[in-house]
Amino acid sequence: MSSKELGITVKKDQDLSEWYTQVVTKAQLADYSSAKGFMVLMPYGYSIWEKIREDFDKKIKAIGHKNAYFPLLIPERLLKTETEHFAGFTPEVFWVTHSGDTELAEKLAVRPTSETIIYESYSKWVKSWRDLPILINVWNSVVRAEITSTRPFLRTTEFLWQEGHTVHETEKEAEEEVMTILDIYTKLVEEKLAIPILVGKKTEREKFKGAVYTTTMEAMMPDGKALQMGTSHHLGQKFSVPFEIKYLGKDEKEHYGWTTSWGISWRLIGAAILSHGDDRGLVLPPRIAPTQVVIIPIFYKETDQKDISDEVRHLSNQLEQIGIRTLIDDRAQYTPGWKYHEWEMKGVPLRVEIGPKDIRAKQVTVVRRDTREKIAINRSDAKDRINGILSDVQNHLYERARKSLDGLTTTAADMKSFRKVLEEKGGFIKAFLSDESCEEKIKIETGATVRVVPMKTAKKGSCVYCGADNSNEVYFARSY
Amino acid sequence: MSSKELGITVKKDQDLSEWYTQVVTKAQLADYSSAKGFMVLMPYGYSIWEKIREDFDKKIKAIGHKNAYFPLLIPERLLKTETEHFAGFTPEVFWVTHSGDTELAEKLAVRPTSETIIYESYSKWVKSWRDLPILINVWNSVVRAEITSTRPFLRTTEFLWQEGHTVHETEKEAEEEVMTILDIYTKLVEEKLAIPILVGKKTEREKFKGAVYTTTMEAMMPDGKALQMGTSHHLGQKFSVPFEIKYLGKDEKEHYGWTTSWGISWRLIGAAILSHGDDRGLVLPPRIAPTQVVIIPIFYKETDQKDISDEVRHLSNQLEQIGIRTLIDDRAQYTPGWKYHEWEMKGVPLRVEIGPKDIRAKQVTVVRRDTREKIAINRSDAKDRINGILSDVQNHLYERARKSLDGLTTTAADMKSFRKVLEEKGGFIKAFLSDESCEEKIKIETGATVRVVPMKTAKKGSCVYCGADNSNEVYFARSY
Repeated sequence: MSSKELGITVKKDQDLSEWYTQVVTKAQLADYSSAKGFMVLMPYGYSIWEKIREDFDKKIKAIGHKNAYFPLLIPERLLKTETEHFAGFTPEVFWVTHSGDTELAEKLAVRPTSETIIYESYSKWVKSWRDLPILINVWNSVVRAEITSTRPFLRTTEFLWQEGHTVHETEKEAEEEVMTILDIYTKLVEEKLAIPILVGKKTEREKFKGAVYTTTMEAMMPDGKALQMGTSHHLGQKFSVPFEIKYLGKDEKEHYGWTTSWGISWRLIGAAILSHGDDRGLVLPPRIAPTQVVIIPIFYKETDQKDISDEVRHLSNQLEQIGIRTLIDDRAQYTPGWKYHEWEMKGVPLRVEIGPKDIRAKQVTVVRRDTREKIAINRSDAKDRINGILSDVQNHLYERARKSLDGLTTTAADMKSFRKVLEEKGGFIKAFLSDESCEEKIKIETGATVRVVPMKTAKKGSCVYCGADNSNEVYFARSY
Repeated sequence: MSSKELGITVKKDQDLSEWYTQVVTKAQLADYSSAKGFMVLMPYGYSIWEKIREDFDKKIKAIGHKNAYFPLLIPERLLKTETEHFAGFTPEVFWVTHSGDTELAEKLAVRPTSETIIYESYSKWVKSWRDLPILINVWNSVVRAEITSTRPFLRTTEFLWQEGHTVHETEKEAEEEVMTILDIYTKLVEEKLAIPILVGKKTEREKFKGAVYTTTMEAMMPDGKALQMGTSHHLGQKFSVPFEIKYLGKDEKEHYGWTTSWGISWRLIGAAILSHGDDRGLVLPPRIAPTQVVIIPIFYKETDQKDISDEVRHLSNQLEQIGIRTLIDDRAQYTPGWKYHEWEMKGVPLRVEIGPKDIRAKQVTVVRRDTREKIAINRSDAKDRINGILSDVQNHLYERARKSLDGLTTTAADMKSFRKVLEEKGGFIKAFLSDESCEEKIKIETGATVRVVPMKTAKKGSCVYCGADNSNEVYFARSY
């Protein structure tokens, strides 16, 4: 394969959709499957998912959550128990109707989400206030029929995610849990994935089917479309009543529990690709990069080989010692140029080149993936300098995405400017909205939906659609 | 709930089946689900699975394997590609036929195992010898309709497992991979789970449908029935040919790859329960115990509280520092007796009691779960002593299980003694076997199957069934 075929053949700012597909496949993150709508998560993509997973798993365990596993298939009767929830999910459910050649007595849903099958267990497990809170998380995959075309990570029929499901004694505790998780999500996305987000609530129209309210994180992609990054739902007693999750309180009386659920998925990887990638391929924030530094020895003459190899190993050991994930690429069958190209495509944050000149000058050459800046650094303080540059890369990616978000956030006072912004550049449109009827009309007429209602909106104003006073501030956008 | 209700109400050696069910539920390892045949893996059970997973994951990554994820649903056409494989699995496949109200054009199998969907990808990914070997592992769940009754961990329609799928340039490399993995499995089972096993091959009759041959680990449960602990298959070119996994070799010619697959499941947890548990509940080998040491402060008077709490925290910190997983149980709402009972049920290897007497004597009291021996140890060397006792527990559990296995292994020269052993105590029956016809007859007449054909059998003898000379030595047993 020539170097050219390996590269991305379109510019990111000219054809984002084609650029995205090429990055996903050429960086070997994911592949299509002949099962329509399904995606294969390739080893490199999976290793990024493992980083996200490890980080979140550690954080929720530190505050008392535990993992568990619940059945993949949900009897229809259970899925129907909470009617609003069922109505929301039923069009996209995959149904198992046969086992071998035998028709099943009751059809089974491939889980689109696990509230119902989990709450069946909780109703057995919760008896006394001593059994609360229940703080359980599940790492699994869920399946929801996608009628529109597949987009790896962003829109797939099956996706890997985590779903947390908790039960609390009081509504206050449940609402605190919703916010605690939203905060952990926010830090993961902003501090690890380097993606700035808007945080707030969904409207009634956009909330999770079965929730009292849904909190959300929304990011802005370079094409002006919003991407929902994760949600944390307050379910009140909407599930605990039909599922009879009841406990005997300290007051010796029976009460229904208060429940929450929350999830993030492999979609976060899609967001990172879109946010940070460039015309050369993927650009990974160091904190989620499976490999943070790739060291490439450059051999010209046989005589240099030992010195160079020693220095490569020495630096690699030093970096590993301070927890920097380092890879030595000394494959003989590829040229240095080929390797530069491959690791740029794969978005490794820093490349270190060590050749004869570097040995003589007692230096190593570091190349940043984000800016492509070349920096010669002394061997003696290579470890600390590289560590510092990795931090710079992380911060720079966040700041660059922050600027992009700011540039794609506009205020609109009336529908004329609303439409103009939407057509010209898209992005978030900050506007006042009176009620669900105006929300519905805006969606029908423009395709934009309310992405976020800020948590605390002191400001009130005239509705962008009908002009009614005392309307709330919200953020509209078209979305993925 | 009274202490009595919490305890196991039957003896392990009197009713193993009921004992097992009670341990599983009362130690909160797993629970039944209203989805028939399915099981809920509860947080405590999941944390044991996490230990097994971490250990195996680290070992295979260290020798170049990587994790990935492949679609849950497999189009019928793909599953049919290798006919022998399809015939083997089709009776137990769950079929998805509808999405919402719409009938699918092609029905989709909920994966019973992933060879077919994975090989479809491999046929695209493998082009040159440079792309080999492919060493991929998947952590997922698979679904196979269970017609017999559910037994948590041992026989469930869905189970968590890992499935490894590799492609190699040569048959020799593929066969080496099969053995490398079998060796990692063996160490995991013997050294971590403390369960001695027989290792060898399956007969043609018992091998994986689609394999050239299957290697296996077989353990012996206290009721004299064998339990298959994991398998590693040499698939030869039986899948690479129909799936067209071809590569251009160093010789510039096209060749088919050589493939392997291998898996272990949550069944290993069931084996540990059966092997080590006693009339008080679960007994966990320290190396897979989520909590290795539980420290219980015993408060009589207010005045002692600070001294005791300080000592508890001090010891906990010391143990954590040397990597011992320690839990302090200072819940005020339960008595020490209640806690002893709970942690014994959950099989925590060591309990440390610290009360006023211990403080005065500058000691702590350690109670072993396996032998229930009480040991007073000096505070000054508590850390090292506890570490040593944990090793003793691990070794003792293995030795005890080893003795049980030896006691349940018998040689039979003819069918009369074969039947007698089988009826009286079961276990492994070492015997010579001529061919598949005798194997089949023995299965029909006695219910015993060949569990293992030893890797190297120098010994030959007369077939236990037909008396034919020059027959191979094998191990029979009834099995789970």
